[in-house]
Amino acid sequence: MRSENRRAFLRLAGGTLAGAGATGALARDGAPLDVPAWTREQGVNAPGYGRPAPGETLARYPRLPPAFPGATSTVTPLQGLHGILTPNGLHFERHHAGIPAVDPDRHRLVVHGLVERPLVLTMDDLLRLPAVSRLHFLECSGNTPWVGAKAGWTVQDSHGLISCAEWTGVELATLLAEVGVKPGAAWILAEGADACAMSRSIPLDAALDGAILAYAQNGERLRPEQGYPLRLFLPGLEGNLSIKWLRRLKVGDRPFQTREETSKYTDLMPDGTARQFTFVMEAKSVITSPSGGQALRGPGFHEIRGLAWTGRGRIVGVDVSTDGGARWEPARLEGPVLPRCLTRFRLPWRWEGGPAKLLSRARDETGYVQPSREALVAVRGTRSYYHNNAVFGWSVAADGAVRHAA
Amino acid sequence: MRSENRRAFLRLAGGTLAGAGATGALARDGAPLDVPAWTREQGVNAPGYGRPAPGETLARYPRLPPAFPGATSTVTPLQGLHGILTPNGLHFERHHAGIPAVDPDRHRLVVHGLVERPLVLTMDDLLRLPAVSRLHFLECSGNTPWVGAKAGWTVQDSHGLISCAEWTGVELATLLAEVGVKPGAAWILAEGADACAMSRSIPLDAALDGAILAYAQNGERLRPEQGYPLRLFLPGLEGNLSIKWLRRLKVGDRPFQTREETSKYTDLMPDGTARQFTFVMEAKSVITSPSGGQALRGPGFHEIRGLAWTGRGRIVGVDVSTDGGARWEPARLEGPVLPRCLTRFRLPWRWEGGPAKLLSRARDETGYVQPSREALVAVRGTRSYYHNNAVFGWSVAADGAVRHAA
Repeated sequence: MRSENRRAFLRLAGGTLAGAGATGALARDGAPLDVPAWTREQGVNAPGYGRPAPGETLARYPRLPPAFPGATSTVTPLQGLHGILTPNGLHFERHHAGIPAVDPDRHRLVVHGLVERPLVLTMDDLLRLPAVSRLHFLECSGNTPWVGAKAGWTVQDSHGLISCAEWTGVELATLLAEVGVKPGAAWILAEGADACAMSRSIPLDAALDGAILAYAQNGERLRPEQGYPLRLFLPGLEGNLSIKWLRRLKVGDRPFQTREETSKYTDLMPDGTARQFTFVMEAKSVITSPSGGQALRGPGFHEIRGLAWTGRGRIVGVDVSTDGGARWEPARLEGPVLPRCLTRFRLPWRWEGGPAKLLSRARDETGYVQPSREALVAVRGTRSYYHNNAVFGWSVAADGAVRHAA
Repeated sequence: MRSENRRAFLRLAGGTLAGAGATGALARDGAPLDVPAWTREQGVNAPGYGRPAPGETLARYPRLPPAFPGATSTVTPLQGLHGILTPNGLHFERHHAGIPAVDPDRHRLVVHGLVERPLVLTMDDLLRLPAVSRLHFLECSGNTPWVGAKAGWTVQDSHGLISCAEWTGVELATLLAEVGVKPGAAWILAEGADACAMSRSIPLDAALDGAILAYAQNGERLRPEQGYPLRLFLPGLEGNLSIKWLRRLKVGDRPFQTREETSKYTDLMPDGTARQFTFVMEAKSVITSPSGGQALRGPGFHEIRGLAWTGRGRIVGVDVSTDGGARWEPARLEGPVLPRCLTRFRLPWRWEGGPAKLLSRARDETGYVQPSREALVAVRGTRSYYHNNAVFGWSVAADGAVRHAA
């Protein structure tokens, strides 16, 4: 990588910087350095809680016009983010009946149903219990629409319903052990305190596989739109299961067949039947730079950057193609590569200035390989709304403009 | 840990929750659940860039009254944070002449001195180069005053000049390889674009040991108070070396003897001499919960939580004492344990209700053990201002009040 970096930089310094009107140039040593205006005057102090620089305008926006007021999702600007973490202010969010203003002092979590000792817990109770902190991605199963792709898509439009954070809270397994799950228990109803009482059924096995009753995100308490003061967090599973404003867990012997797992969040197959309870987010990846709406400044060195993830554990490799899939090269994976977490990948690339097509393909530790759209459609058809994890392409035009190309 | 968690929770549920006026209680199964006001009405939508919940008031504040306007440091509220990451809005910051309003389009980085090919780089140039992302702590060497400890200190007062983030940028080694370091080069002057042109000398070895020209923090571009648009980041070394608003790197054959490494940032020894260039932040730890200013709600289960770090690699263990050092127990280290990064530790504790004294002691992979204050003072005296990494104590009174006790 070092020698590759060397060559890459030499191309940059000898090519792009010196030519093409770029401002970068060889310095004239000994010449006095410019002293800009901001160095000539005393600066300001820091606020108690900081904000981005005034010129940095990354923001979430609704992916689609709301179906009705209070039901929308807003997308993370992946094209402007670096590394694997999403700042809390930019973490994607989806709500079905608005974001409630929950009073944490009055909020309660009830655990009941097929348990020996039903409990009502305050936030103080939960904050005292043994805690865990883990870095995980969260992805809405509706991320990346199956149909209606637009050439003008940015990666925020196409993939912005994924984010990644450090989540802290109480393992659900800890709480379940203590309330005493009764024989026959197999599913848990999780219910939110929002105006639609968002509810989903969680298999007991999934609930015991690293699920967290989360009260903090990236160090600080949850943001309102992430379920403040308490959410369920189910690593690797479709985002809707991670019920926000969590107020109730009811243990039962079968799924509860809520609206969101019958009329919604099912996968319509080519034969007209619907697959239900398709929870795991399979391996997926996307190139975030260069990506839709960006323009390459000129031929020469560019670093291809992207994100890969899998709900089944760790990413073990990402292959990148710059010619539409004829040849593939393994990208460098930035460490630490953590289970059910975003992984940043990078590949040095010399753009010759002609048309190119960029693709990425993730592999996970189970041996699963992210499928092409053709392979996925052959099995699933195009009537599904959820769980599109197909390989995704960006075309680069001769003028450097980047657009989506399937 | 699971069985310990079980026992701990049983004590909580059977003791604290049911007694002492706590609101938590056994649920009456079948009774209708309360439907709070916020569930009865539609909620709001999410802003483009989110903010903490209105009732969450964690904030930085100046640790000391500013020596003069524009020279202060503001401290991170460790007592209210979870996991290892610091949200960007709460990352500690120190500035010596205010925070400049740098225009990123006009900002330049000059690399000159003992190099073959001096360069002037724009931010666009830097953003195109091969990048890395790494999780690291940053600690001011003035964190934790040597003298003047107060019983009323919070951990924000005593240890708030440390934070932790994911930093993204170009490895300094990449840039140095390309400008071509000349024979005899041994030190690098790094200069900021703030009104004091903050300057420090960096040994070439340290500059090649993972130093980053950082432009992003926790995913998004640097905040103004963290050096927007560009800072040097030197993992594991005293914070002042990580020059913010970085505008110049000059390679030389000896240290440049700037103000901040002669009159400041040296360690005054008992014999009146000063140690200079003491860069590495040695292993250190602190208990963040319970900590100063907090009050235990009642006897029974509490989780002792804290942070440990070392500038020399990985933390391998943290021992905790609840009786002032007579007995020590190993805490659980939360993974991933990363080099030159904060590590969260946790230990279940049953508080019997009497006086207690809590201490933590970190060990790192070099075999170094965080020293007691006595051991440190025996070598260093008490005339130093910087690099106090001594074991730090909190006393718990019979009424649950927590105060600093040396």
